[in-house]
Amino acid sequence: MQPMVLSALDMSCVGFLAQGVWTHPADRSTRMNTLDYWLDYARLLERGMFDMLFIADTIGTYDVYGGSIDAAVRGGVQLPMNDPSVVVSGMAAVTKNLGFGITGNVIYEPPYLFARRMSTLDHLTGGRVGWNIVTGILASGAKVMGRDKIVAHDERYDVADEYLELMYKLWEGCWDDDAVRFDREKHLFADPRGVHPVHHDGRYFKMEGVHPCLPSPQRTPFLFQAGASGRGKAFAATHAECVFVNGVSKESVAANVADIRRLAAAQGRNPADVLVLAGATIIVGRTDAEAREKADAYRRCADPEAVLAHAAGGLGVDLSRYPLDEPLTYQETDANRTSMEMFTRNAKRTYTPRQIAEEMALSARNLLIVGSVEHVVGELADWMAKTGVNGFNVARLIMPETLQDFVELAVPALQERGLLKREYRSGTLREKIFGAGPRLRSPHPAAMARTST
Amino acid sequence: MQPMVLSALDMSCVGFLAQGVWTHPADRSTRMNTLDYWLDYARLLERGMFDMLFIADTIGTYDVYGGSIDAAVRGGVQLPMNDPSVVVSGMAAVTKNLGFGITGNVIYEPPYLFARRMSTLDHLTGGRVGWNIVTGILASGAKVMGRDKIVAHDERYDVADEYLELMYKLWEGCWDDDAVRFDREKHLFADPRGVHPVHHDGRYFKMEGVHPCLPSPQRTPFLFQAGASGRGKAFAATHAECVFVNGVSKESVAANVADIRRLAAAQGRNPADVLVLAGATIIVGRTDAEAREKADAYRRCADPEAVLAHAAGGLGVDLSRYPLDEPLTYQETDANRTSMEMFTRNAKRTYTPRQIAEEMALSARNLLIVGSVEHVVGELADWMAKTGVNGFNVARLIMPETLQDFVELAVPALQERGLLKREYRSGTLREKIFGAGPRLRSPHPAAMARTST
Repeated sequence: MQPMVLSALDMSCVGFLAQGVWTHPADRSTRMNTLDYWLDYARLLERGMFDMLFIADTIGTYDVYGGSIDAAVRGGVQLPMNDPSVVVSGMAAVTKNLGFGITGNVIYEPPYLFARRMSTLDHLTGGRVGWNIVTGILASGAKVMGRDKIVAHDERYDVADEYLELMYKLWEGCWDDDAVRFDREKHLFADPRGVHPVHHDGRYFKMEGVHPCLPSPQRTPFLFQAGASGRGKAFAATHAECVFVNGVSKESVAANVADIRRLAAAQGRNPADVLVLAGATIIVGRTDAEAREKADAYRRCADPEAVLAHAAGGLGVDLSRYPLDEPLTYQETDANRTSMEMFTRNAKRTYTPRQIAEEMALSARNLLIVGSVEHVVGELADWMAKTGVNGFNVARLIMPETLQDFVELAVPALQERGLLKREYRSGTLREKIFGAGPRLRSPHPAAMARTST
Repeated sequence: MQPMVLSALDMSCVGFLAQGVWTHPADRSTRMNTLDYWLDYARLLERGMFDMLFIADTIGTYDVYGGSIDAAVRGGVQLPMNDPSVVVSGMAAVTKNLGFGITGNVIYEPPYLFARRMSTLDHLTGGRVGWNIVTGILASGAKVMGRDKIVAHDERYDVADEYLELMYKLWEGCWDDDAVRFDREKHLFADPRGVHPVHHDGRYFKMEGVHPCLPSPQRTPFLFQAGASGRGKAFAATHAECVFVNGVSKESVAANVADIRRLAAAQGRNPADVLVLAGATIIVGRTDAEAREKADAYRRCADPEAVLAHAAGGLGVDLSRYPLDEPLTYQETDANRTSMEMFTRNAKRTYTPRQIAEEMALSARNLLIVGSVEHVVGELADWMAKTGVNGFNVARLIMPETLQDFVELAVPALQERGLLKREYRSGTLREKIFGAGPRLRSPHPAAMARTST
């Protein structure tokens, strides 16, 4: 078995996936506005041989529950939500190997400026940057961005396809590898024959000009995606190097993994070039009892209203209007089909608002593993064997306690079992993960956009 | 006399203002893609008691000269041009007091995302962030941003005024100071009664929603501006806390400073609340002869074609079409009136292309001071006394040699003369500079946007 890919899943916020646990006495996530918080975070992850910190993001606020932002404000539900990109160079300054998955929204980020920001980060981190490609799910996100309404779900992926086409032109097609000379004697900084401006006039985007950054170590950053719908998975199968899936049963995740690999193969890609990580919430103790005690204490911190406000925003359904014990069913008219499917189809069951508030308090839609080192290591191994996932996106819970527990207890045991690397590979994030790179290879569409050989 | 404000002026590029000097054997600016380059830079500036590093920016390329980007590519003229914001947290991690002036373009940066990025940086740096407000001057910038043409000069400032109004609503008006509670016992993250969504429906921008960041140390970052036109100065007089001016004669700069202060007073502001920094290129040696030798060596590295390509882009005039010794004159039809005025009116003379290539090789439109420690210190003191500027924006020349010379030779002498502080003041950038803050005070329009007292 390949060593597992280990990612830490977080957002630049306080109330992330487990609403209310910020009130636990050990939690330090309210310090997330300080740089030291992130520097310590990065050091801890590198000590724990994590491949990357995956910084999710959302644009807009959770304002569906009760028709206002009040519940989100009271609970700190993904509000505040800081910019995910600007903290990275600080963390890069105190680490050598940790990668950084940065979320960028293709509907709202101006392509030229976003391409520049990512190339700059790829340079500054020595090629340790990934891009989590998202299209946004909140109607409130459209409104803060000055739009009347959110782009329809499937069309968002049409926009995303064109956005990626444009990114590849900028990252891969503008600068030949041998264009940059730095020739002091000849006063030749770069050879214009190797610099190719983009001429793009598409359905959604228009651009005339050259990418303003020199070729960065990876050129195209390591590409993440988490599309769960049919259209989302087709997009991921075309572009993603790493897909992030949710699911609470091994059967549903295994089917999802097989589906993604099948779609990638249908695109002419080697299915092994598409890694899949499962979102996981992990509470590990020296004994099962210790872990369960911690989990119970965390769960007592849960904030039911905040959990429902979070779920309501994701669903686009005002859960304050439904009886607590009435199962929610998917309706064609619901604004957010994808998220609704996550609750009602992927998990192969329906939920009542009360069940959402109780069962999703700690783990949202992730798998939840609570137990001794032996139990956690065994479960992770079993998930990899039975589902085909390549590793895990470990969701932040109590910061930094749950991560410290994982790093101090589970990581050495995973290494002893040969499930986790003892050393990082050299090179860029892509080389560390795949052992190949640093650039994307044919038939990935990024490679096709290269004008030089 | 107040101690001088000392800022380092740079861009995230190689060929900045002195085109060609990257070819000097001592120059290390081709390393600017690495994080270590910037960390060393920040440490050097803090050792030299600089108040801030001012990172200018431009969107688009210098493609006017000869009708193509070729000259800019050959000379590395502000190409590459990396993102100015993402390097800041790295520098903040290795410094305690240095401020960071980050350029942000109000025509192209989506307001919600830009406000979030700046608030995040203000948090992460502990309030050490400034915003250099720009509107962009390159027609090529409009094209890479998917527009057919650049917004007309004066209208760009109308856009800027509305952009600032929106920023103040987000930074100052959304969150009352006492809204954030972090109350673990009551499970109250923040009080919704203190959170006020923005409802903005203006001529250029529309927004419905709440600023996604908690109040940062300064809320509104320290505001820089460099408008040189009449409309630009009116904008600066309304919003800027620090104005950056160019000019090679004390008379013209003195008139400019008086004009800015008069305009600020006319807005009801205390003229002392508007600092003015003069752009300065400084080559200091142990003796006059040593400094002149260095200057001559630097000048020999100048690249005339690159200098003209840079000037042509700023002017919007293809200087390759004009005879080398024919004075350039301002025409109403020229695309870029402001820059043309800088060359032809502020300096109270006209230039031929040859003069531009020769005289502007090292200093562009900045004042140039070359000499012994005594000469440099005397000149800086004289500039402050005769023009009313509060300090200098010291332009990068040979990196890091010219800055090291300045820090090692000029800084101790400036301190001995009582012209430069020996210690930083505590607090945010605003408090370090003004000795007051951390928030903007009435009658600044930012303060007026506050809903709480």
